Amino acid sequence: MEQRLTFITLGVKDLQKSIDFYENKLGWKPSEMSTKEIVFYQLNGIHLSLYPLKELAKDAEVDPAGNGFKGFTISYNAKSEKDVDEIIDALRKKGVNIIKEPQKVFWGGYSSYFSDPDDNLWEVAFNPFL
Amino acid sequence: MEQRLTFITLGVKDLQKSIDFYENKLGWKPSEMSTKEIVFYQLNGIHLSLYPLKELAKDAEVDPAGNGFKGFTISYNAKSEKDVDEIIDALRKKGVNIIKEPQKVFWGGYSSYFSDPDDNLWEVAFNPFL
Repeated sequence: MEQRLTFITLGVKDLQKSIDFYENKLGWKPSEMSTKEIVFYQLNGIHLSLYPLKELAKDAEVDPAGNGFKGFTISYNAKSEKDVDEIIDALRKKGVNIIKEPQKVFWGGYSSYFSDPDDNLWEVAFNPFL
Repeated sequence: MEQRLTFITLGVKDLQKSIDFYENKLGWKPSEMSTKEIVFYQLNGIHLSLYPLKELAKDAEVDPAGNGFKGFTISYNAKSEKDVDEIIDALRKKGVNIIKEPQKVFWGGYSSYFSDPDDNLWEVAFNPFL
């Protein structure tokens, strides 16, 4: 297998609520591939998809039941500490759930987390070493 | 927020076991940023990180407890149906858990799933419309 991936698909409980989050809180635009059943966002070389949770489990032939920590995070690298602060402040004003306030972290960066409507964790960080 | 992401981090129960999986089953090479605590794979414009589950939860300031379906999948688009079959066959021979056998699916593609040691679901699919 080549060292690449094409899509990250988030299984969502309420597709309309998630669309509202990604488009009206994060300000993203859906790609033309999107349908009423599945929504795609073209990112940097990959796609993020939103698909109903039960349908996603069904597609993978697994039980849809699950709870608690999902065991993964998605990180967005901001351009500076100030950029992190501004992004988090703007999201907070739009009612987004801030999980970890921006702060210096042990690895030398500056990091924060927010969650989407399905408790997917997004880190917004500045990494001075990148 | 710009329409992009930098890292997907998988919280893993046993880092050595996960490294073995991604490097010896999938055949990936770690990037130079990797340390004993966290391993990175440079993919197509993004990075995949493996990090101990409890540390990841601690970093995000959330409870590490969780079980069942994680509510997300990662997809790898293969070049043809034959490519899907060959990837899945090669993984099966290496002892990888095949969750869904390659098959024609409702959206017109050809798809299969395997899981990593933490039950993260990887789809290997051929999409004739891409």
